[in-house]
Amino acid sequence: MAVDTLSATFAALADPTRRAILARLASGERSVTELAEPFDMSLPAVSKHLGVLERAGLIARGRDAQWRPCRIDAGPLKEVSEWTERYRHIWEARFDRLETYLQALKRKKHKERGHGSRQQRRQ
Amino acid sequence: MAVDTLSATFAALADPTRRAILARLASGERSVTELAEPFDMSLPAVSKHLGVLERAGLIARGRDAQWRPCRIDAGPLKEVSEWTERYRHIWEARFDRLETYLQALKRKKHKERGHGSRQQRRQ
Repeated sequence: MAVDTLSATFAALADPTRRAILARLASGERSVTELAEPFDMSLPAVSKHLGVLERAGLIARGRDAQWRPCRIDAGPLKEVSEWTERYRHIWEARFDRLETYLQALKRKKHKERGHGSRQQRRQ
Repeated sequence: MAVDTLSATFAALADPTRRAILARLASGERSVTELAEPFDMSLPAVSKHLGVLERAGLIARGRDAQWRPCRIDAGPLKEVSEWTERYRHIWEARFDRLETYLQALKRKKHKERGHGSRQQRRQ
């Protein structure tokens, strides 16, 4: 069964090492050896992660047989961003409701404090 | 090994059925039976998908034993959106480069056509 693009992208991103690799590539091209450095991982293990990222179209590899630099391709991340945008109104509505609640709470406390001080003045 | 939040979210989203369920829940609460309707899938299969979404914090289930409606929680999607934003400059730069290239191509064609018509006039 062919996996749709978005599913392949999400599956590739569901791993902290692969996301860390992308974060490093965001600042420029890197060789496999350079990418492996910060991880306590064998070169074949890193290569396997790079394979997943490459199949998902998130990275591209240079053709040079000696030095095959990896570079990021953020195209699939743009798709993820566009997909996520459809739900923005939901998390923003939740934030708005929270803010309304907090403001109501603040007004209530302010009112209570106001009553308190009037009572104190009367005493 | 505990899976980090972002990895759990991405893994939950790496399935078209689960994304379709989220899309339906974006318009309001639904029972499991209602959610199962458009899919050629058994209730247990749908329940399994809902379990994955629930563990990732993408949906919440009502407490009512008779009717446990599912509702979307877009909180984790906000995190995905924020994570993706870090790469926006990369896909926008690619788009800018493409636009610069297309404009250069357009100017070149325009120039060629200009030269062509002068040559025709001279003949």
